[in-house]
Amino acid sequence: MADAAFKKIEVVGTSTKSYAEATANGIEKASESLHGMSWFEVVEMRGSIVDGKVHQYQVTLKIGFKVD
Amino acid sequence: MADAAFKKIEVVGTSTKSYAEATANGIEKASESLHGMSWFEVVEMRGSIVDGKVHQYQVTLKIGFKVD
Amino acid sequence: MADAAFKKIEVVGTSTKSYAEATANGIEKASESLHGMSWFEVVEMRGSIVDGKVHQYQVTLKIGFKVD
Amino acid sequence: MADAAFKKIEVVGTSTKSYAEATANGIEKASESLHGMSWFEVVEMRGSIVDGKVHQYQVTLKIGFKVD
Amino acid sequence: MADAAFKKIEVVGTSTKSYAEATANGIEKASESLHGMSWFEVVEMRGSIVDGKVHQYQVTLKIGFKVD
Amino acid sequence: MADAAFKKIEVVGTSTKSYAEATANGIEKASESLHGMSWFEVVEMRGSIVDGKVHQYQVTLKIGFKVD
Amino acid sequence: MADAAFKKIEVVGTSTKSYAEATANGIEKASESLHGMSWFEVVEMRGSIVDGKVHQYQVTLKIGFKVD
Amino acid sequence: MADAAFKKIEVVGTSTKSYAEATANGIEKASESLHGMSWFEVVEMRGSIVDGKVHQYQVTLKIGFKVD
Amino acid sequence: MADAAFKKIEVVGTSTKSYAEATANGIEKASESLHGMSWFEVVEMRGSIVDGKVHQYQVTLKIGFKVD
Amino acid sequence: MADAAFKKIEVVGTSTKSYAEATANGIEKASESLHGMSWFEVVEMRGSIVDGKVHQYQVTLKIGFKVD
Amino acid sequence: MADAAFKKIEVVGTSTKSYAEATANGIEKASESLHGMSWFEVVEMRGSIVDGKVHQYQVTLKIGFKVD
Amino acid sequence: MADAAFKKIEVVGTSTKSYAEATANGIEKASESLHGMSWFEVVEMRGSIVDGKVHQYQVTLKIGFKVD
Repeated sequence: MADAAFKKIEVVGTSTKSYAEATANGIEKASESLHGMSWFEVVEMRGSIVDGKVHQYQVTLKIGFKVD
Repeated sequence: MADAAFKKIEVVGTSTKSYAEATANGIEKASESLHGMSWFEVVEMRGSIVDGKVHQYQVTLKIGFKVD
Repeated sequence: MADAAFKKIEVVGTSTKSYAEATANGIEKASESLHGMSWFEVVEMRGSIVDGKVHQYQVTLKIGFKVD
Repeated sequence: MADAAFKKIEVVGTSTKSYAEATANGIEKASESLHGMSWFEVVEMRGSIVDGKVHQYQVTLKIGFKVD
Repeated sequence: MADAAFKKIEVVGTSTKSYAEATANGIEKASESLHGMSWFEVVEMRGSIVDGKVHQYQVTLKIGFKVD
Repeated sequence: MADAAFKKIEVVGTSTKSYAEATANGIEKASESLHGMSWFEVVEMRGSIVDGKVHQYQVTLKIGFKVD
Repeated sequence: MADAAFKKIEVVGTSTKSYAEATANGIEKASESLHGMSWFEVVEMRGSIVDGKVHQYQVTLKIGFKVD
Repeated sequence: MADAAFKKIEVVGTSTKSYAEATANGIEKASESLHGMSWFEVVEMRGSIVDGKVHQYQVTLKIGFKVD
Repeated sequence: MADAAFKKIEVVGTSTKSYAEATANGIEKASESLHGMSWFEVVEMRGSIVDGKVHQYQVTLKIGFKVD
Repeated sequence: MADAAFKKIEVVGTSTKSYAEATANGIEKASESLHGMSWFEVVEMRGSIVDGKVHQYQVTLKIGFKVD
Repeated sequence: MADAAFKKIEVVGTSTKSYAEATANGIEKASESLHGMSWFEVVEMRGSIVDGKVHQYQVTLKIGFKVD
Repeated sequence: MADAAFKKIEVVGTSTKSYAEATANGIEKASESLHGMSWFEVVEMRGSIVDGKVHQYQVTLKIGFKVD
């Protein structure tokens, strides 16, 4: 079987600034234990509120990576 | 009944700059009449176009808050 | 028939910085061949990863424009 | 913060004649207690049956209105 | 077990005039072989086009009825 | 306009025991400020975990009530 | 053709106590006229409210059974 | 390759009267520049509100047509 | 009422070879007790695994047929 | 603006044999008028039935291609 | 990067009694190999039927836990 | 706790020939590091295009396996 295969895991990245930074943080964190990451898909966006202001942006990502 | 209960309302925040700012603006506006907001969920993202450029980012949020 | 009609097309904008810029880029690109664009809806958000970091934010948009 | 914000509420309008009239009735009813309504989105369409015939068309709407 | 139970079947009604009439026609047709129908839910709306005009409105319904 | 109209609000009920009790608690809480409630729809089910065990069942409900 | 085939029907079970009992009641009722039932899938959960309390839990199920 | 192929485009039709007329208007408008239209699918229903009344019904359609 | 009406039933076809054969088998099986079948829609695709290999492809279909 | 942009169109491919061939046929047909196609996404699978057997497999695809 | 990150895994818990117990069992089982679990989301509810009665309730959960 | 528990992982299988082979390849690849796989669910189907022809069929699967 020469055809490539991939796995997807689900990660939640967070940021106090933006959805893009939450995404970047989640992927950076995942990179500490995972190699060969190739793409991500946004599954959910939410966040926490403190004192009537956004406290944290939270982005749930599916991350795809090649299976050797 | 000691178990907590929450309500969710739906708000559309807008910004000329980013989805994150549209989110923050929507929550800030909601905070003028609502206390105890705890979290938000992004339901929809869209916007308006003027002269071939993004004019406004619009983010629909569900906002959860505790019922006393 | 005096009632207005609209069409929607689907475009993917990209950016190395943020979802908002990816959106703006997709609409700017579409404006080169399309006039009368009025609104956009975000359909999908994803991106590519290189060396364990976000390489590109990709936002799929439906763009609505008036049919003359 | 000069950017506009909106709220959405959910209303079910009913009619014995059509989905359009059910929509119109729901909005007319909502207008008794709500000002500044700007748009609606159809969320669900259903109805009741009596004696093997449609008895009532029911349309669930999200109604958007500007927050002052 | 005294609690009531219901079944749902799926029916497509058609009309050359409107979605409401397509709904009514589907339910009237179902009533020829089915008794105790109580409610319907709209699942899908589509139709056929002939010579650049709507030829038929088609409404797929779930119809709920009590099981004796 | 004699046709009835309804509104729906969204409530999250919680319980340490079951989804049914979380539902009942959410509705009981809503009944303190709302009259004429007629039906509910389950929108989401989730919960919190403490020390490797379910700590709280959380059920998000849409509650429908008649508008006078 | 030796490969097995299945059908699915849709049933609504009800209970005054819990979602699990509503499920069990719906399946028990279906078993009166149907043999060879093999699995169920929960499609929808809702219920009725009387005097500010849950009156009935309603669970819509798809039930799969083998076709001989 | 003798097997037929089709394309789908997305159109928004509008009407001040009903969803059916909005559908018919959208298809009639599309027919000015498109031939061979065969079927439509309703994707979204919404509208605008002016002075507390429905001002316009808007129906988003996918229109399928044969590719020669 | 001269407008045609249709029903849809849900069937699961299976095959050890492909999704297309699973589809064909499900329809062939349904044809033993049902006449006038006109179209099908794929609702779900899944299957069973034995010894680390696909054992069976399973395709859930909605089958539409005319009601006389 | 150096960031790439893409468009997506929606095509229905058909085959009397399999979903894979229906996909290939749809893309081959689209290639007659479209260059730079890069990927496809399956949106819907359905088909027609004649004399109790599958007559045609139909696969709706979104096709993505680069905008120069 | 000081912002927290989370992972989600998907688990199916089972019970012969209720959906709540199936949930609790799935989380208890996951706790044997996983620490720091914080919340769960119900993704799917189904079950098996034996002799016309519910044999097993099955609840698919996404479980979120902090990544150190 | 004697009730069985399962986990689900997400895998993308690929093939140059068909969706069924892409499925089989993904499962075969997963079997190299995973035992006790019991069923799969198709989550997404897509693929790549080269020179106006399908280059690769890609099937995203959820694979369920028993947790000992």
